[in-house]
Amino acid sequence: MIDPRVASGLRDIPPAAMIVRERMLDSFRKTFASFGFLPIETPHIERMEVLTGKGAGSDEVLRQIFDVTNKGGTPGELALRFDLTVPLARFVAKHVNDLGTPFKRYAIGSVFRGERPAKGRFREFVQCDFDTVGTESAVADAETAQVIHDALSNAGVPAFTITLNNRKVLDGLLDTLGVADKTGPVLRALDKLAKVGREKVLDELQGALTGDQAARVLAFVEQGRGGLEVLDRVGEQIGSHPRVEEGVANLRAILGLLDAAGVPSDRLKIDLGLARGLDYYTGVVFETTVDGWERFGSVSSGGRYDNLASLFTDRKLPGVGASIGLDRLLALMEEAGWVKGTAATAPVLVANFPGVDPGVAVGLAARLRKAGIGAEVFPDPTQVGKQMGYGSSRGHRVAVIVGPDEVEKKLFNLRDLATRQERKGVGWADLETTVRDALGSGQGAAS
Amino acid sequence: MIDPRVASGLRDIPPAAMIVRERMLDSFRKTFASFGFLPIETPHIERMEVLTGKGAGSDEVLRQIFDVTNKGGTPGELALRFDLTVPLARFVAKHVNDLGTPFKRYAIGSVFRGERPAKGRFREFVQCDFDTVGTESAVADAETAQVIHDALSNAGVPAFTITLNNRKVLDGLLDTLGVADKTGPVLRALDKLAKVGREKVLDELQGALTGDQAARVLAFVEQGRGGLEVLDRVGEQIGSHPRVEEGVANLRAILGLLDAAGVPSDRLKIDLGLARGLDYYTGVVFETTVDGWERFGSVSSGGRYDNLASLFTDRKLPGVGASIGLDRLLALMEEAGWVKGTAATAPVLVANFPGVDPGVAVGLAARLRKAGIGAEVFPDPTQVGKQMGYGSSRGHRVAVIVGPDEVEKKLFNLRDLATRQERKGVGWADLETTVRDALGSGQGAAS
Repeated sequence: MIDPRVASGLRDIPPAAMIVRERMLDSFRKTFASFGFLPIETPHIERMEVLTGKGAGSDEVLRQIFDVTNKGGTPGELALRFDLTVPLARFVAKHVNDLGTPFKRYAIGSVFRGERPAKGRFREFVQCDFDTVGTESAVADAETAQVIHDALSNAGVPAFTITLNNRKVLDGLLDTLGVADKTGPVLRALDKLAKVGREKVLDELQGALTGDQAARVLAFVEQGRGGLEVLDRVGEQIGSHPRVEEGVANLRAILGLLDAAGVPSDRLKIDLGLARGLDYYTGVVFETTVDGWERFGSVSSGGRYDNLASLFTDRKLPGVGASIGLDRLLALMEEAGWVKGTAATAPVLVANFPGVDPGVAVGLAARLRKAGIGAEVFPDPTQVGKQMGYGSSRGHRVAVIVGPDEVEKKLFNLRDLATRQERKGVGWADLETTVRDALGSGQGAAS
Repeated sequence: MIDPRVASGLRDIPPAAMIVRERMLDSFRKTFASFGFLPIETPHIERMEVLTGKGAGSDEVLRQIFDVTNKGGTPGELALRFDLTVPLARFVAKHVNDLGTPFKRYAIGSVFRGERPAKGRFREFVQCDFDTVGTESAVADAETAQVIHDALSNAGVPAFTITLNNRKVLDGLLDTLGVADKTGPVLRALDKLAKVGREKVLDELQGALTGDQAARVLAFVEQGRGGLEVLDRVGEQIGSHPRVEEGVANLRAILGLLDAAGVPSDRLKIDLGLARGLDYYTGVVFETTVDGWERFGSVSSGGRYDNLASLFTDRKLPGVGASIGLDRLLALMEEAGWVKGTAATAPVLVANFPGVDPGVAVGLAARLRKAGIGAEVFPDPTQVGKQMGYGSSRGHRVAVIVGPDEVEKKLFNLRDLATRQERKGVGWADLETTVRDALGSGQGAAS
């Protein structure tokens, strides 16, 4: 016997969880599509040099790569993708002449990282990315936040906050202080502010800056959180600086467009200390926390980059995009009790009554499906009580039962599997309307 | 510069093809769900011993396995799955006590085989599997064919033939001839009948049987194709034999149930020579060809097995299921010209008119989306002619245009991107109704 376990850090997704995942992915796809984003798919396996090219992934991510080799293949040539951004860069470089710009794509798929397994952390997980490539427009920047807003709202997240910044503001501040070359260590330190607290961050900043510079940077960041009014103070804090002004103007434009789009302003927050990684983003950056569930971290993050595909093409391709972390969001929603719905895909169970021709059940179920109502036939003519137990435990809502007494008169009984109440002796001609009424309007479809 | 090509035998799926794929997968999911099949997902990576356990895959498939290793991992321990059946067996062995039986699952996902790359043959491809585990009922056998029928019909395949056999009939014939031990070579030879013709098959059969036996087997198979009447002749051809009678009774029951389900009988065919592989199936087997496109081979195949998970558990788990080959079906439908629809996800393009506040376009697009009509805003305020060209080439159907003359009066122009006709000066208040009318009823949603 072989042990049926999965490998360390991997997992099976059973039906109850998978039904929720599919519903959420379907909602995301509809949201992305409603903005004109187009789906693409790239292979799970990429050539190693595509994944490990300079700047493609952080050192940590590269250490976590899974090599792939088939018999007769050369080890080290192929690997599993660790995100959907490097494959997007390769895809765009290869296909941009056919596709033209702006190119708006979404992609949903598994990515693989050989991280040390831990609770809630898996070596295969799903990313949901959307990007607009080939434009520097603030319309695309604002739309990225708008898509995050609509995607989370449509997926049933009741309240969340999208935090925005533009990397140019902090860049300008450091330039004003004469320490533009210290961006790396400063951003690394600031990224930890929420986690380790101001004292430790101040200590770390003083490794790269003077005490006075460190204090100014930290004060700027700490005063840089809030609504639109935060942007009004930047001028007096830093003075006139072209990059700062560019960054502030971009954030004002984004907030104006989001207002025009009807995104509630209390869903949006400015945080001038938000960095989101070190080298990649060059303009607006986003992160999103669910109100009251901030400890789960960001459920959707992204930003603007100057040049997506520089590893693969000379053509300069600026863009903006974000990623929704499906697994983290689902874990949060589950814990918050926001996951609704049953574990059944079809709401009706049609009993297979002992001694009655199973063609009767099969025929009635086919009629229900034709009317758009999902219906499952129990395969074996076992005790009806056992069949009802199966239906209740699976989340079926009603059962259609035709016993030997009913079959001749072309009648059925309809049992509510929650209340166990039974409506007896309904004519077959009234099947669809009776079942639809029992399920409640609009709830007949598999969902 | 790194070459942005994909590895040999792999491919990118661009938007136009991906939109069609997503539509088809969505249709399959809805069909599977309408019968009460539940979705599951298993990792792309499995432990090697799970995949290579005796009987898990054919020698050919095992030679094509992709090994997977991460830094610090041991080579040879992990591999990419080559189908969804072995993972199902492992999943069921691990979870059956929690899930109970009958367990009806569907799974859609990529599988990997290091085959020699060839036109239309890829090393990563998508399988769509559905199975009913834990029952020997003919209701589940018939339902398998019914799901194939509904899935293909709902996906827009106009005419196809599901061919059925029961392996017990041929087993019984060979037993009657006293050559029950020759099942392997006989089935292997018969599987090639359509491809190489009767003479070559007769030659091959004579490697295992006497000339007379070979002739009888071939004659039986050749007369064994057609409708229900084929089954009436079996008794006189073979005489009384318990396995034959079991097989014939099963096929009769299946055809009766499919009739009760309303599956048209001209979609069904018996072929008593149909084997579908050698060792795995033990009862009914199915294969499905699209009428007029038989050269593409079977687009959906499957059958009944006695014992799914014997590698992993002592518990005997009989079941029945089938797989739809998404890539083959899509290639066929594309070539047949049955793939409909545009390459756009959102039917409306909202122009970003130079000199007009882009918030106007963003606001109108948000209103359309709220009304369930997909709308894309062009990100840059370039020449409107260029924006219309983008819309036409992408497959957007209408464009909403607000120029400087319109914006003050709160008007818009609506351009049909196919006919280039423009309706001028419509009030913003009438946006949703005007656009919905122009798109035609029910066609507003992204699709």
